This record gives sequence, C-alpha cells and structure tokens, in this order.
Amino acid sequence: MKALVYHGPGEKSWQDVPDARVRESTDVVARVDTTTICGTDLHILAGDVPAVTEGRILGHEAVGTVTEVGDAVRGFAVGDRVLVPAITQCGRCEYCQRGMPSHCQTVGGIGWIFGHLIDGTQAESVRVPYADTSLHAVPDSVSNEQAIFLADALPTGYEVGVLAGRVRPGDTVAVIGAGAVGLSAVLTTGLWGASKVIAVDSDKFRLQTALDFGATDVVEAGADVVSDVVGLTDGLGVDVSIEAVGHPETLRTAAAVVRPGGTIANIGVHGVPVELPMQDMWIQNITLTMGLVDTVSIPTLLKMVGSGRIPAEKMGTHTFTFDQIDQAYDVFANAAANSALKVIITGS
Amino acid sequence: MKALVYHGPGEKSWQDVPDARVRESTDVVARVDTTTICGTDLHILAGDVPAVTEGRILGHEAVGTVTEVGDAVRGFAVGDRVLVPAITQCGRCEYCQRGMPSHCQTVGGIGWIFGHLIDGTQAESVRVPYADTSLHAVPDSVSNEQAIFLADALPTGYEVGVLAGRVRPGDTVAVIGAGAVGLSAVLTTGLWGASKVIAVDSDKFRLQTALDFGATDVVEAGADVVSDVVGLTDGLGVDVSIEAVGHPETLRTAAAVVRPGGTIANIGVHGVPVELPMQDMWIQNITLTMGLVDTVSIPTLLKMVGSGRIPAEKMGTHTFTFDQIDQAYDVFANAAANSALKVIITGS
Amino acid sequence: MKALVYHGPGEKSWQDVPDARVRESTDVVARVDTTTICGTDLHILAGDVPAVTEGRILGHEAVGTVTEVGDAVRGFAVGDRVLVPAITQCGRCEYCQRGMPSHCQTVGGIGWIFGHLIDGTQAESVRVPYADTSLHAVPDSVSNEQAIFLADALPTGYEVGVLAGRVRPGDTVAVIGAGAVGLSAVLTTGLWGASKVIAVDSDKFRLQTALDFGATDVVEAGADVVSDVVGLTDGLGVDVSIEAVGHPETLRTAAAVVRPGGTIANIGVHGVPVELPMQDMWIQNITLTMGLVDTVSIPTLLKMVGSGRIPAEKMGTHTFTFDQIDQAYDVFANAAANSALKVIITGS
Amino acid sequence: MKALVYHGPGEKSWQDVPDARVRESTDVVARVDTTTICGTDLHILAGDVPAVTEGRILGHEAVGTVTEVGDAVRGFAVGDRVLVPAITQCGRCEYCQRGMPSHCQTVGGIGWIFGHLIDGTQAESVRVPYADTSLHAVPDSVSNEQAIFLADALPTGYEVGVLAGRVRPGDTVAVIGAGAVGLSAVLTTGLWGASKVIAVDSDKFRLQTALDFGATDVVEAGADVVSDVVGLTDGLGVDVSIEAVGHPETLRTAAAVVRPGGTIANIGVHGVPVELPMQDMWIQNITLTMGLVDTVSIPTLLKMVGSGRIPAEKMGTHTFTFDQIDQAYDVFANAAANSALKVIITGS
Repeated sequence: MKALVYHGPGEKSWQDVPDARVRESTDVVARVDTTTICGTDLHILAGDVPAVTEGRILGHEAVGTVTEVGDAVRGFAVGDRVLVPAITQCGRCEYCQRGMPSHCQTVGGIGWIFGHLIDGTQAESVRVPYADTSLHAVPDSVSNEQAIFLADALPTGYEVGVLAGRVRPGDTVAVIGAGAVGLSAVLTTGLWGASKVIAVDSDKFRLQTALDFGATDVVEAGADVVSDVVGLTDGLGVDVSIEAVGHPETLRTAAAVVRPGGTIANIGVHGVPVELPMQDMWIQNITLTMGLVDTVSIPTLLKMVGSGRIPAEKMGTHTFTFDQIDQAYDVFANAAANSALKVIITGS
Repeated sequence: MKALVYHGPGEKSWQDVPDARVRESTDVVARVDTTTICGTDLHILAGDVPAVTEGRILGHEAVGTVTEVGDAVRGFAVGDRVLVPAITQCGRCEYCQRGMPSHCQTVGGIGWIFGHLIDGTQAESVRVPYADTSLHAVPDSVSNEQAIFLADALPTGYEVGVLAGRVRPGDTVAVIGAGAVGLSAVLTTGLWGASKVIAVDSDKFRLQTALDFGATDVVEAGADVVSDVVGLTDGLGVDVSIEAVGHPETLRTAAAVVRPGGTIANIGVHGVPVELPMQDMWIQNITLTMGLVDTVSIPTLLKMVGSGRIPAEKMGTHTFTFDQIDQAYDVFANAAANSALKVIITGS
Repeated sequence: MKALVYHGPGEKSWQDVPDARVRESTDVVARVDTTTICGTDLHILAGDVPAVTEGRILGHEAVGTVTEVGDAVRGFAVGDRVLVPAITQCGRCEYCQRGMPSHCQTVGGIGWIFGHLIDGTQAESVRVPYADTSLHAVPDSVSNEQAIFLADALPTGYEVGVLAGRVRPGDTVAVIGAGAVGLSAVLTTGLWGASKVIAVDSDKFRLQTALDFGATDVVEAGADVVSDVVGLTDGLGVDVSIEAVGHPETLRTAAAVVRPGGTIANIGVHGVPVELPMQDMWIQNITLTMGLVDTVSIPTLLKMVGSGRIPAEKMGTHTFTFDQIDQAYDVFANAAANSALKVIITGS
Repeated sequence: MKALVYHGPGEKSWQDVPDARVRESTDVVARVDTTTICGTDLHILAGDVPAVTEGRILGHEAVGTVTEVGDAVRGFAVGDRVLVPAITQCGRCEYCQRGMPSHCQTVGGIGWIFGHLIDGTQAESVRVPYADTSLHAVPDSVSNEQAIFLADALPTGYEVGVLAGRVRPGDTVAVIGAGAVGLSAVLTTGLWGASKVIAVDSDKFRLQTALDFGATDVVEAGADVVSDVVGLTDGLGVDVSIEAVGHPETLRTAAAVVRPGGTIANIGVHGVPVELPMQDMWIQNITLTMGLVDTVSIPTLLKMVGSGRIPAEKMGTHTFTFDQIDQAYDVFANAAANSALKVIITGS
C-alpha cells in the first residue's frame, strides 16, 4: 500500500510501505476512505515533536471501511464504515474509566498515538488498536466529508473549548483565534445556548466564516482587542473565553477579556512558557482549563451532525486525492492565504 | 470608642474615634467581642493596598453582639451574637444571586470592604452594611474563639482551596504552604474524603501542626519537593494541588505536582506576574482556579464546627485584649518565629 | 383602584379596593401594565386551594411600572419598568441563599405568595414585598407582551422541566402535555441542544403549536402513546421525559417512555396520590424530579428573549383589557376550545 | 469442581459440575477464594427471579485468584488476586461509556449476569467475561475479607444511596433500613462530610451496629418514625433520605422525612407498585433516585478501605467454608435472629 512517510524535519513522501495488518487480537484494519491534515502534522514536519521518528506514517484522522478484524473484536465487522478518532483508548485503565482517554495509560501514557507513536492515517490503510473501545460506527445520516472532522477538530473545539469552559445558556463567549479549531468551538457553542459568541482573529476571511458558523460578533485582532471585546459585554467581560491559538499573547488576551467568575478555556498548543498577570488575576475568581481532546463527545456530535444541527461539512474548504497529498499540505500550511480551513483527502 | 486606625505605610494607632452608628436602614452596629488579624492587614500596613487610605479603621473579621439595628433589618435584633464575615453582600446583584458575593457589584465591585473601603472590625464597634444578607447568627454550640476563624481563614481554605479544587473521596491532595489558610484547607479537606493530604512547608512547627490538623503526610520544602510529593502518589502526582503562599515558585510547584486531569487551586495572593510552563501544561488536562473567598460556606462550616467535626479553635494560638493589639500584630507578623497561626483579640 | 377579588369557590369580581401602598420599607408598589392568568388561578376559583381566603386579590404574574418605593429599597426607583415574578424572595433565608426561593422561609414557607397569601397582580396596582431581591428590571429589548410570560410559565417549563431534567446536547426529550407550561419546556429545551423533542398531547392545535415552538416530532395521546414515543428513539426510550399535566396516568406515561439512566421531570400539579410501578422502575437507574418554580432563571431568560433566541411572545394568543377580565377567564378556562395558550390582560 | 446449583424454587445443592473454562478470548477464569451471599440470592431461591433457570450456579460476588487467561486479555495474568464484581461491563457500549454498566447492552441488557444469566461465584471457580473491563486487582493493603464486600454491598450503599443522594458536607442524612446495604450507606456517607446520619430500623442489633458504623443517631421504626426523624433535624426534615428496604411503606417514610429541596435515594428492590403522595410531594422540589449498582466506585472504595477510612471487614459477622454453604444460607436467611450482617464463605 501507499502512505505518507515522515523522513525527518521538512521531509515526507507518499510512498510504498508494507500493508497494514492485524497484529493484536483487539486490532482492526481499515481502508482509509477520507483523511485530513491537522496543525499538529505541520508541527511534526517542522521537527517540533521529537517523539515522531523517521519512517513514521503521518496522520491521526480518518473515515474508512473495515477490511480485517482481530479475534477479540466484538463490535465491528468487515465492511463497516467507521470513524478513526485521534485518540485511542484501552477502555480499562484509570483514565479511560474516568472518561479521560487523552491520557490512556495503556496505549502510551497519552491517547494520541496515530502518526505519533504508531503509524497513522494518511495512508491507504491503517491498523487500529483497541478497536472496540476506540472506533465509532458512522450512521448513514453522516457523510464521510462530515465525519472526518469529528476525528479531531470538532471534538477539540467542543470538549476543550465549550465543555471545559462550561458554557451555559445566556453566556457570552469569546473565541480568540478563528482557525479550524476555534471555528469548531464557534460551531458547537450554540449547542449550549450562548447568547453572544464573539470571534477574534486578524484574518478577514476567518472572521467572515465565523459569522457564517454562528458567531454573533467579530473583532479584528489588534491593539484594542481587549476593550473591543469587553465593550461588547456591557463592560463586564465575557463569561467564557476560549483561546485557540497557542501563543502567550493570545492567552493573555483571553485572560484579559474574561469577567470575574468566568472561565478561560485554553485549546491552543503552547511551545513556550506564558507569563500570566497573577497579581491581577488571583482575585478574579476565574478558572483556567487546558488539555488534549478525549474525543468522548463523538457519539453526541455524530447525533448532532446527523440531525443537521451541526453543519460539519462547512469545515472542509478544499478536496484532494491521496496522490495530491503534497498539494494538500501546501494549501493547508498556507491556510489563510488560500482561504482554507480544513482539507479533505480522499482515497480515490 | 476606640479603634485601630491606619496612618499610612507602617503607621497605625489604637485611638479614640467617633462611635460606629447606623447610617442606612439596612445597617446593623455590633460591639466587637472577638477579632483577629489577617495576612492582608500586614500587606495594608506595608502600603501594598493603595485603596486603603489614611484614617481607615483596619480589620475584616469579627464576632460580636448587635447593639443597634436599622429600620429595614429583619433578621437581627439587639443582643444577637453574630459573625461579621470578611465579605459583605447586597444579596441582589448578579454576582450575589449566583453565589459569588466576592464581587458584589453593589458594595464596591468587591465584597471585601471592611478595613478596606469602609471602617473595619479592629475596633470596639463596627457598622455592618447589608446586615440581613451579610451577618450570620452564631449558634450556642460554637464559641467566639471558634467562630472568629469562620470570618475569613477557614472559608478561604475551604472555598478557594477544597471546593474550587473539587476534592472528591479517595483523592490525593497536596497543600503547598501550611500557614493559617493552608492549614484551613488541611482542616476541611477531610470533609470530602481525601485519602491522602500532603502538607508542604519549610517550617517544622507548621508541618507538625498540619499533621495535627489532619494531614496524612508532610514534605519539607526544598530542592526535591516535587519528586518528594509525587513519590507519595505512586509517581502519578496528586489529584488536587492547593497553593497557599502566593509566590511564583510555589505556584509552579503546585503545577508540577498535579497529575493529568487534576486541579490546581490557587489561594495565594500574588503580587507579581507568574511564568507558567504552558508548553508542558497545555496537554495535561488540568484546571487552575483562583479567587477571593465568597464566605458562602459559613452556614455549612458553622454546622461542622458545632458538631465537632472541625476543631476551628485550634487555629488560635495566642490571645490578646484590644489594648494589647500592637503586641498581637508583632506576634502575628512574626508568626513562624512565635509558633503562631492566628491570634485572638478580645474586647475585654 | 380596581382589582379582581376572590369571593369563595366560583365567585370573583372586578371591583373597587383600597389602593396598594408601601407598608414595609422593603416594599415597592407597581402599577400593573400587563398581567395574565395561570392554571393555578382556575384551581383557586374551583376552591382547591384553601389557603386563599375570601377577599383576596388574585394573580401572581405582572409587568408594571414602579410608582412608590420603600425607604430601604436600593435597586428600583419610581418609573422603572419591572417584572413581578410569581415567586417572592427575601434573599437571606437558607433556601434563598441556596437558590431555592420557592421555599423562602421568610415570606411564608413558600415563595408563591401573590394571589395566595397576600394580594395579587390582577389589579391596577400591586404591593411587592422584598422588592430588591424579587423584582427584575425589564430591558428595552423585551416587550411587556414577552416579559409577562417570564413571570411564571416560561421559568416553570425551563427550571422544573428542562433544568431539573438535566437536558444535555444530543438528548432526546419527550414533553407529555403541550399546554402553556409544556410548550414553555419545548421552547427552552432547544437552549440545551436536544437532538429530538417529542411533544405529546390529545389536542391537534397544541401539537401543531408544539412544532412551531421547536418540537421535532409530535405524538397524539392514546393507547399507543408509549410505543409511539419509544419508537421514535430506536426503541430505547427518551433521555428526559417531562410531565406537564399533573395526572397519575400522564406521570406513568412519562415514566414508561424514559430510558435507563434517564430523568423524569414532573412539572404537573398533582391533586391525588400516584401509584408508580416501582417493581419495574427501581432497576432502571432513573431520576424523578418535581417542584415549584424558583424563577431564578429569569435573568437568563430575559437575555435569551432580548436576543431573539426565545420568541416568548408566541405564548400570548389572546389579548384583553382589565375590564374584560371575566371574558379573559372564560377564554382561558376553555383554552383548547378557543385555541388559546396564554391570555394577555393590559391595563388600558 | 464443586458449585452451588439452583434446582428451582427452594432447591439448591453443592455438587459436582464441569470445570469453569475460558470460552471467549476476553474471558478469565478465577479460583474463588472468598464469596458471600446477597439478599438477591434469597429472592432467586424463593422463585422471584424467573430469568434464573434450573441448573444455574448461584452467586455474584467473589474474591479469587486468576487461573486461566483468554488470548485477548491484557490486564490480568495467572496468579493475580482479583475482585469479581456483581456487574460485568463490556466497556464499549453506550451505557458503559457513560459510566453506567448496570445496563451494559452487550452482556445482556443488564450488567448483573453472574448467578443470573450465566453461572456465578458460589463455586470453586468462575468464568469471568470481559475480564479486562470488569475485574479489579486487589492491592496488598486490602484483605479478602474486606474486598468481598466491595463486590456488591458497599458500592450499592455508596453509589445508589450516598452518591445518587448527592450527600454534601454538612448534610443531614436518614437511612431507612439498617441491613447490610443500609449499613453500607452509613459506612460511606461519612466520606462526604454529613453532619448527621440517622439510622432507622426495627431491630436493636442493627441500630447498635449502625452507631458503630458511624451513624450519629438512631430511630426505632414505629408509628412515630417520621416525627422522630424530623425532630432530629430542627423540624425541617433531612437533606438526603436513603431507602434500603424495598417496601411501599418504607419508601413513603423516606419521602415523608425529606426536606424541600432534598433527595430520596431508593436502594430497595421493590416487588410491587408504590403509591406516592404526589399531591403533597410535587411542590417540595425533591428528587427521587433509584437504580442498580454500577460498581464503578470500586477503585475509590479500594483506596478508602486500603487507607483504613472504611472498615469494610465489619460487614462480615459469620464465616463458613464452601462445604458449610447450606449453613451459611440458613444464617443469612435469618440474619436478624442471628445478629448477622453478611456471611463470609471461603474456599478452604
């Protein structure tokens, strides 16, 4: 089969590799019908994730069709259409039992293993460990082009942004950063009845998209961003502030726009320490949350996409086939210039 | 009457002042039978709290007896024994309605006004605004020497540490800093069934006291503090890490000892920014909380003290009368050297 | 002034009464600009509520204008447009402090006192006790014809149905009974992202209205109601079952359609005991909730009505003036025959 | 091997049966070192549980040693000391994923299968399906004589009583029925800081035991039980009322002693419908919960037993060997007369 193989910083190739096969009785192998690229894949290519070694197949999001099933697998059969989520869960360690497979102690101390600790989904086929507890059947009411965004982007915005931020009916919410993950938070915050959703970004296409995704207000990033956002909330600040960039400055902006008693939900992946003004923050009765997605919201999100409440397909702005994967990476790496959110890569 | 008046940084005097009197129909005046000193009072004397102006009577904790009642007050009568808490609440603003009077919009944008924005409790009498919604009757089963620590210290440790930290049965808890507030967290964390409570401090007297207050383990602060604490938790880190010092380093220690999925509850009052290793923390699914006490847990704490489950009286290590108040400040300002936790100051 | 006075079972008259006046310093008097009739008023007229004695002015819902203010009132002034909710709260008793003024110990052991224990709102003016903690300012973005339904009907459907039932995104919800309160639950359950809202009633007008209010499915009450509802949920039963009738049979229907782990939220006012099949229910891990509205959700609902997310005005199907109040009662008492939901009664 | 086989109502025998063996790759076989008898076993023998057919090996609680391991099992090895809980969970169905394996859709629509739908634990060996997600390793700090009560009785009292009842620090709690399960609730309610725990029973030995297990007050069942309990709570009623009998009358007592806003947690197994006074209850803002244990609290309980906070061994009042199992049933069936709580049955 063919797959996208990492060959060290800046180097990757779509090349022949040995076929994916069942190794453990709890494995499934799935043909990859649809995959996509995540910002993390760009970080890996930049050499920022040392755990990814040369020869690793990239990618951690897929929708596919089961082609081989291990002896112990009970929930899936050959031919099933399945969602392969970013997080693999054993289902029995302490973290899985408490609904936090992001830190599954069995699969590697972390639930994100595809395209990281084991071979990934940017390939014609992928081996899926712990299939019974990790895979999701895709209902007929959800297309591949919708389901693919439930592998990582949408659950990340929803779980790490909306749920961790404890959005409640009537709340005002700011989303700092309107890329794919920030927009996922915009798209799902409406599930909880937010009265105002303010998207902040420096890119006009993204702000326009945010309005289309359900934001009620947009603010262009700049020197006045804090006063602009606070001005939209009667001077009180927002109830929930969602950071979806991963820079010190944007996290401080998120902290500056939240009201006393509010929550800052950090989704951003940070690469450096962040200095927080604790001398001002300590008295504000605020909560700061952060973390890797668990993907435990996928069953809920599948229902909401299937019933039409979440138009997940809007996340996909560009479509490619596997043999155009280099081009897909180029477009996604320059998302703003290409008015791109997420790319869809199909097997044929 | 006499009261302790602030005269600018480093200056205070126990002196004659005009009698406290009812000004608004919602006021009560109470004779102060018992008061104490808070670490915040020391900060004020150091000139760190600019909102406190010269001429202000200090103190925000008291147990007393009602001597005058405004026309609109329904819940209290002359002669009632009452607890005057650190936080004043109007009971009707949005923050009071959601149980967060720490930020009562009516009394000053902040619920802490005694000895700060209005005259305080280190006086023979004190005027108490919004008495109906702020005061608490003290039941016979609770002594003045117990109740006084429910005005601020115990609710702070309990609400900002234990409740914000969401301690649950079976949890492991670290309390960084075993001063009066840290020890309050130790004393109340047992209410939630923690399986292990690890107190961390550099002072041997405080560590010994922590054991007496219910800590199961103690760790002396030092270069190995993180590995020492984590070593007590099978290498996993604690479920809840409570910071009760207010320094960048101790907050980073609190962050370093918490396990994935855990909570860092910051109680400490910070004076400078804090650099947090977000490059390591973002992926840990942790929550950082902080804030001023609301004192809404006082009814629960009164029950628990009255029933003997919380030996609040242990907080008081030294007793003085009002005319010894300078001495009381000296002892408290050098608490460690004097093996002091909290001082009790009585009216007669 | 004129008011609607109760004169014993079946007897009422719109007649002259002494003017409403401030009696306690915490009172406000408001001119009633808009009021309405509640099903409870019909029960009172039927003689079912012995606490209501002859001579009592009826009604517990109003939007009005402040005309007189007690000395202790801080939050309202003459001329303010206000919502008078069904529940009066002192703001300081244990129940008010925990957000449950439905059982305010100060105002009467129960928070519903208007038109019950004191004179009510179906009058040209009304005295409002504990005004600071009970009244709500009405923002310009909300009309009288919207606000009036936030006095009782909408908060009842929302708090006692949707919130008590703990509706969560993706949930399936059945609402048994599509009268004014059941429809209020339909109208607000969407705030929490329910994936399916099934309305059950025997009246075709109400079922049609339910669809207009946001129900996704309707089921006509009858012998097959349980199988019809369960059939809409893949045979599993609903996550949340809301009873809005108050009969033994409808509560048993609500219990029969809920899935294991689900919640039955009883809103209905029951007049007789109910036999529940506990031999089947005990093993189902279900929760049954019930209660009087607290009206603490009014601030949230005002925001959601003001922002257009809840079209509260749709509740009002008929409009009358005070001198037509007998006619208003006739229409409301025969709501189904008149295709009526709630009536609006205006002061001029 | 030998096992206790059900032969129809009233008939059982300790007899030779085929050895337990691994059938599915996810099975484990464990030698039973310690087992016990549950009230449900008595119901089965009385013929009350038609799903139990002749030839079935009884029992659903065990502590044992792994003797055979299926190919797909990853978490357990031959020689491991394990707790076999009453509930079997597949770990991947919707109910297991939401932490409610009591209704595991895979193992039988209900999680309780041992001694019910498959052969049970009152045998020299037992086959355990879905071992990875169902079994628990027993730490050295917990003895067999403690662990055996974590298979069913203690988690039932804790989850279905204390957790479902949402006991909070300071709460007053009544436990109606002080048998093994009611006493389990008494033993674990202290984890949540209840200020008062009132045990109600008609048997003096059980009331005495309740005091030993942590009850603060006891009330002898009788005509005055409601007023006696309410009298212990300043006339207000308890915050949480736990029913641990399973009769209509005791459930009504539980309902009668709860205060407005409180919770009734039904643990009792009911055999007939129950008439509830909904005409009085609807307005009380109370919650009624019920259900089968999930045993998801076992990890927490193992910690609390291991640390000495829960003296689980106190539950075992009588000890027998397998060849005395008939005698064990006799003692347990007449528990009150024998001053028995739970019996311990050991393999040798």
